[in-house]
Amino acid sequence: MACARQNPFGVSSHFHGKYRASVSKGNNLGISKFYPFSASSIKSKDCFLCTLQYDSNWNGFPAQKTWVDVEKSSRVNSSNFTLLGSFGRIFHSLPDLGDFFWEKAPTPFLDMVEYPIHLKNLTVKELRPLADEIRSELSFVMSNRQKALKASLAVVELTIAIHHVFNAPMDKILWDAGEETYAHKILTGRRSRMHTLKQKNGISGFTSRFESEYDPFGPGHGCSSISAGLGMAVARDIKGSRERVVTVINNMTMTPGQVYEAMRNAGYLDPNMVVILNDSRHSLHPKFEEGSKTPINALSSTLSKLQSSKSFRKFREAAKGVTKRIGKGMHELAAKVDEYARGMIGPLGATLFEELGMYYIGPVDGHNIEDLITVLKEVASLDSMGPVLVHVITEEDEAMEDNKKGDISDKDQQSLSNLSSFNDHPRTYSDCLAEALVMEAQKDKEIVIVNAGMRMEPSLQLFQEKFPDRFFDVGMAEQHAVTFSAGLSCGGLKPFCIVPSTFLQRAYDQVVHDVDQQRIPVRFIITSAGLVGSDGPLQSGAFDITFMSCLPNMIVMAPSDEDELVNMVATAAKINDRPVCFRYPRGALVGMKSFVSYGEPIEIGKGQVLVEGKDVALLGYGSMVQNCLKARSLLSKLGIEVTVADARFCKPLDIGLVRQLCENHSFLVTVEEGSIGGFASHVAQFMSLDGQLDGRIKWRPITLPDNYIEHASPKEQLDDAGLTGHHIAATALSLLGLNREALQLMR
Amino acid sequence: MACARQNPFGVSSHFHGKYRASVSKGNNLGISKFYPFSASSIKSKDCFLCTLQYDSNWNGFPAQKTWVDVEKSSRVNSSNFTLLGSFGRIFHSLPDLGDFFWEKAPTPFLDMVEYPIHLKNLTVKELRPLADEIRSELSFVMSNRQKALKASLAVVELTIAIHHVFNAPMDKILWDAGEETYAHKILTGRRSRMHTLKQKNGISGFTSRFESEYDPFGPGHGCSSISAGLGMAVARDIKGSRERVVTVINNMTMTPGQVYEAMRNAGYLDPNMVVILNDSRHSLHPKFEEGSKTPINALSSTLSKLQSSKSFRKFREAAKGVTKRIGKGMHELAAKVDEYARGMIGPLGATLFEELGMYYIGPVDGHNIEDLITVLKEVASLDSMGPVLVHVITEEDEAMEDNKKGDISDKDQQSLSNLSSFNDHPRTYSDCLAEALVMEAQKDKEIVIVNAGMRMEPSLQLFQEKFPDRFFDVGMAEQHAVTFSAGLSCGGLKPFCIVPSTFLQRAYDQVVHDVDQQRIPVRFIITSAGLVGSDGPLQSGAFDITFMSCLPNMIVMAPSDEDELVNMVATAAKINDRPVCFRYPRGALVGMKSFVSYGEPIEIGKGQVLVEGKDVALLGYGSMVQNCLKARSLLSKLGIEVTVADARFCKPLDIGLVRQLCENHSFLVTVEEGSIGGFASHVAQFMSLDGQLDGRIKWRPITLPDNYIEHASPKEQLDDAGLTGHHIAATALSLLGLNREALQLMR
Repeated sequence: MACARQNPFGVSSHFHGKYRASVSKGNNLGISKFYPFSASSIKSKDCFLCTLQYDSNWNGFPAQKTWVDVEKSSRVNSSNFTLLGSFGRIFHSLPDLGDFFWEKAPTPFLDMVEYPIHLKNLTVKELRPLADEIRSELSFVMSNRQKALKASLAVVELTIAIHHVFNAPMDKILWDAGEETYAHKILTGRRSRMHTLKQKNGISGFTSRFESEYDPFGPGHGCSSISAGLGMAVARDIKGSRERVVTVINNMTMTPGQVYEAMRNAGYLDPNMVVILNDSRHSLHPKFEEGSKTPINALSSTLSKLQSSKSFRKFREAAKGVTKRIGKGMHELAAKVDEYARGMIGPLGATLFEELGMYYIGPVDGHNIEDLITVLKEVASLDSMGPVLVHVITEEDEAMEDNKKGDISDKDQQSLSNLSSFNDHPRTYSDCLAEALVMEAQKDKEIVIVNAGMRMEPSLQLFQEKFPDRFFDVGMAEQHAVTFSAGLSCGGLKPFCIVPSTFLQRAYDQVVHDVDQQRIPVRFIITSAGLVGSDGPLQSGAFDITFMSCLPNMIVMAPSDEDELVNMVATAAKINDRPVCFRYPRGALVGMKSFVSYGEPIEIGKGQVLVEGKDVALLGYGSMVQNCLKARSLLSKLGIEVTVADARFCKPLDIGLVRQLCENHSFLVTVEEGSIGGFASHVAQFMSLDGQLDGRIKWRPITLPDNYIEHASPKEQLDDAGLTGHHIAATALSLLGLNREALQLMR
Repeated sequence: MACARQNPFGVSSHFHGKYRASVSKGNNLGISKFYPFSASSIKSKDCFLCTLQYDSNWNGFPAQKTWVDVEKSSRVNSSNFTLLGSFGRIFHSLPDLGDFFWEKAPTPFLDMVEYPIHLKNLTVKELRPLADEIRSELSFVMSNRQKALKASLAVVELTIAIHHVFNAPMDKILWDAGEETYAHKILTGRRSRMHTLKQKNGISGFTSRFESEYDPFGPGHGCSSISAGLGMAVARDIKGSRERVVTVINNMTMTPGQVYEAMRNAGYLDPNMVVILNDSRHSLHPKFEEGSKTPINALSSTLSKLQSSKSFRKFREAAKGVTKRIGKGMHELAAKVDEYARGMIGPLGATLFEELGMYYIGPVDGHNIEDLITVLKEVASLDSMGPVLVHVITEEDEAMEDNKKGDISDKDQQSLSNLSSFNDHPRTYSDCLAEALVMEAQKDKEIVIVNAGMRMEPSLQLFQEKFPDRFFDVGMAEQHAVTFSAGLSCGGLKPFCIVPSTFLQRAYDQVVHDVDQQRIPVRFIITSAGLVGSDGPLQSGAFDITFMSCLPNMIVMAPSDEDELVNMVATAAKINDRPVCFRYPRGALVGMKSFVSYGEPIEIGKGQVLVEGKDVALLGYGSMVQNCLKARSLLSKLGIEVTVADARFCKPLDIGLVRQLCENHSFLVTVEEGSIGGFASHVAQFMSLDGQLDGRIKWRPITLPDNYIEHASPKEQLDDAGLTGHHIAATALSLLGLNREALQLMR
């Protein structure tokens, strides 16, 4: 272990223990114990996770969590620390690291497991403390993401049980939800890189085929795992191999319709596969919510075991075979009796799966590793049984509760809560949107909101609280959300349908024929448009300008700042004869205004010139108008006079404005945070048909590049995409023939 | 009744009776009876439908059905006849009309009903013969569409019952399937225009908000009616009005996931609405198909009535209220008992709906008008009951069977069968595709097919028969189809996923992140690309080039003829490192070849010049290459030398080819049968960045116009869209400054 020797602490650099440092002046880091690591699991570059636990009486700081890169320096000092939380104070103002005494929180079992195969050496009894260790490790990595932390903690036992029973990567384990894969990542060779989660060049927040052979499929937008798993199971049967396919879905990913399509088809094609429903008891039966939480007790756990036992299943199969031969009446009766027998055991919902052709087993306590392993072992050994659904009940709050009792101190816990309720965030576009919607809704009582997508923009709670009867959150049911909005509109209301750009892709067909083709006035608010930072390509909204602006009846617009956003809310509220959409990006506002004034409707299809110049015209769409203004500042320093115009509308395009820009300039650059086929294409098509491109103007489009931009900070992503003010300025310079200046600018 | 007086037959021109003419030399049309019509229902222009029943011994002709426009001539003669069927012989070669004796098939009840309100005057007993009359009327209108006829006949009683019980257009009746709305159209003032079904300027094959106030919503691609109906019901409750909302779904439209999203949300929001499941017993439970056909007998009909009776429902509501107050344990138990009580009555499947929050009632015999009316009346009178699902069983074959016994003679029936099995159709692109896929599959045993969409291309049966284990028809579950294909690919197979362009819209999100983002080799075959004739805008594939070619990893191509199609199948089979798609249109082939030879893989991103010229370059994409060639013929007559190139690839674009065209010509026209944002945009973006548009070449894009092209014949649609050879030639002429010649060409 050559690397380890470079480490003066006597700790392998591959050691990922969690340490707690107490303030203790004059002491060195007191790391004493060393848990050996299997040679096979050595990686070339690793770090370990530390907690600096300041004495709260001393400076009133909350607990700080950070990563120490052991390899970069042979001795830990403050310059190696990267602050993960969103605290205002700067780390360097803290006392010198030599002042800390490190209280060790050992992770003996986790240190023995780098890959799932190492789990096989552990007894079922030893898996329990392993779960605690993973849980506390996760708590630190995820300290600034309370919601994701909850979800990731809840499935620790389930993850361990799955990897203990099945043999990944031979067996295929598919996960629907990114947040539930963190324990899986820790157990599949990525522990040392967990601190890079969602950072540039770091590991993805989701499973990824590009990242690990243990990730057989990316999770998509939830709900895809059964379809993909079914494909793998069918392929396996055709190819005659023997691996097992396990997919993990949850309550939330049970909402999109695709799950039903997939279960139905799985029931029909009938290959062996295991679907695990991680039921965290939130939204499976919203209607019955108040009364449906089946207590998980010894009985249900025993019965689950019983159900999954070979003899029981075989008896059922045999019975089915017999009755099938007897005739259809009998068969149906037998099936029904069977169904009810199981229905009486299972909770409300069991028969739903059976109707769709899955064998239901459960519910199983998702925090009882022994039960989980027993059930999964039985399921894994079942042959020719077709698709099985194992219903596992987990409690996110209980997982957090456990954790409180476990490795995280109360102070940590408190600081976690502080983090999650950290209210001093800068105002976002979403805040403005919510306020503008409330103002419009106060004026016009026909305005209603339909919200769809993975989660609701927190700002929208404002609207929900003010107008609970006029707010519909349908969750991850985007297809329904769009047609439902069309129905509301036909019923005489004025629906705003709020969907993140990437999720609107899922409802595209409904947008086309349930809204646009019928010219029904639905107002689409497309959130998270463009790049989305740490959520990476999976959540980025690159294509909406393209796929919305090709629709004949749709008005397509985008605000360049928060005032325009408010105006566009007013504009959309006023348009009542056709559909309209506008997109806005994630993140902070351009200005500093802390309140929203009443919006003024904009004239349809009317852009505006913001700054007049003569050398080159920059025509921005949406948030990119701001970057055009930045480019203008850069160019004005070089003595170049730039016109900046805000297109506002991609459709109907302000052809008067485009003509004016063409007539007054020799060079035109269009800029948008969207893929090819969008705003630039509409400008080009018009200019071509208008003869403007016949030698009158030289035009360059700046769009998102033709590749997916990986997760990174928003600034890094814009830089990767070539959409910063510098890039725009450089494009203008090279269009003007000033290539050297362009290069200098990009240096 | 002024118009009637112009009619020498003593028949109101508003009379839509069905007549049967037998050959009977020397006799005039023997129309004797006249059923009076209510004054309110008089329309200015009407026709009536006739059957010319030739004596089969006389010339061996099958029965001919046609329309007689009474208003156009005061006397019926052969020149007024338009042939609806697809027979080869010309009507004028038939004997003189004077030779026929018209045997009348009266429609006394139907003649009294132009709008649903007229149904209220009829007793339940009188509705039965009305159903027969509608059925026979439909049989003639639909004689050349056997499948649609079956579906339309099956719901005649249901349609009558709905309109008898509910008060349209006040009450909103929504239909999921176009084919099931024909009886509805007949009963809602459109009887006289039924012969224009799906023709240019005729009535649509679907419900349409633009066509009638009795159509509150277009059916979309199936599965949308519950979502839209829910929106209307919620809007009604917010606005405090009282109309009722009824949506009719069927087995097939039960497949797409949106239905589940909608039912779940309906169960949660709990407004009063009625969902009628027209269960024609085809695919609701494919797994149990062999044994699940519940016999519809007196018992089930009685029990359905019992269940829907007010007292029963009220008792249930009361019981629920009590148990809710007692506590969650009890509530759940009560709910379960209730569920099973109803479950024992209902067929397998009932609990599925209950789980989703709908109250299940049924099954009801869909051909028993009395039962239907009883149940619907009860349901209509229920207040505060939330969403109710009425399960109606219809038998399409039985409906046909009934019809046989009824108005259509055996000879008619036989001719219907002849029509449907009319095999002498010209070879289509789909035929070629199926043959090419079979050939590739014979070479490579990893090739599998996943088919999705409303119905399978009939040609694909060839593949299904040859390789039943490698063919997966998932029906209207496009989202699942795409991700399932991705899974098959991950499992080591080579899936071709066949989806009509318009239905691919429904799986767009899955294409983006389950396939393209993960760069998984799935081969999409996009059928029905471009305009689709009589199916109108709802089924037309206008947007696929745009929404597919913006995806970073996707190879996007289109064949210009059948040979290219076969080559592209071979190309797609060979590409195994990234996704690929190609589109082809509906309809007949370019050439006359009756066999397919082995395909040759094309070099990726390589187009080809078909004809060299010098004056203007036409760059076609897909089927439009043929129209470019037509334009070339037209232009060559004017002495203009035209280059025609086949782009083949939209992505990666053949930039070498584009450069070459730019360098050798002053004028370039791009042509595609797709919306803005597609092929033309990719060419423009490249030319701009390459400097080609800086005064080097004058470019004009020809795309689909920015509106929906209404149903008409394919030729008429192309003309409406401006995509014919004439249009392309005219564009080239005006680009060359020959405006007068351009105008002459379009005259």
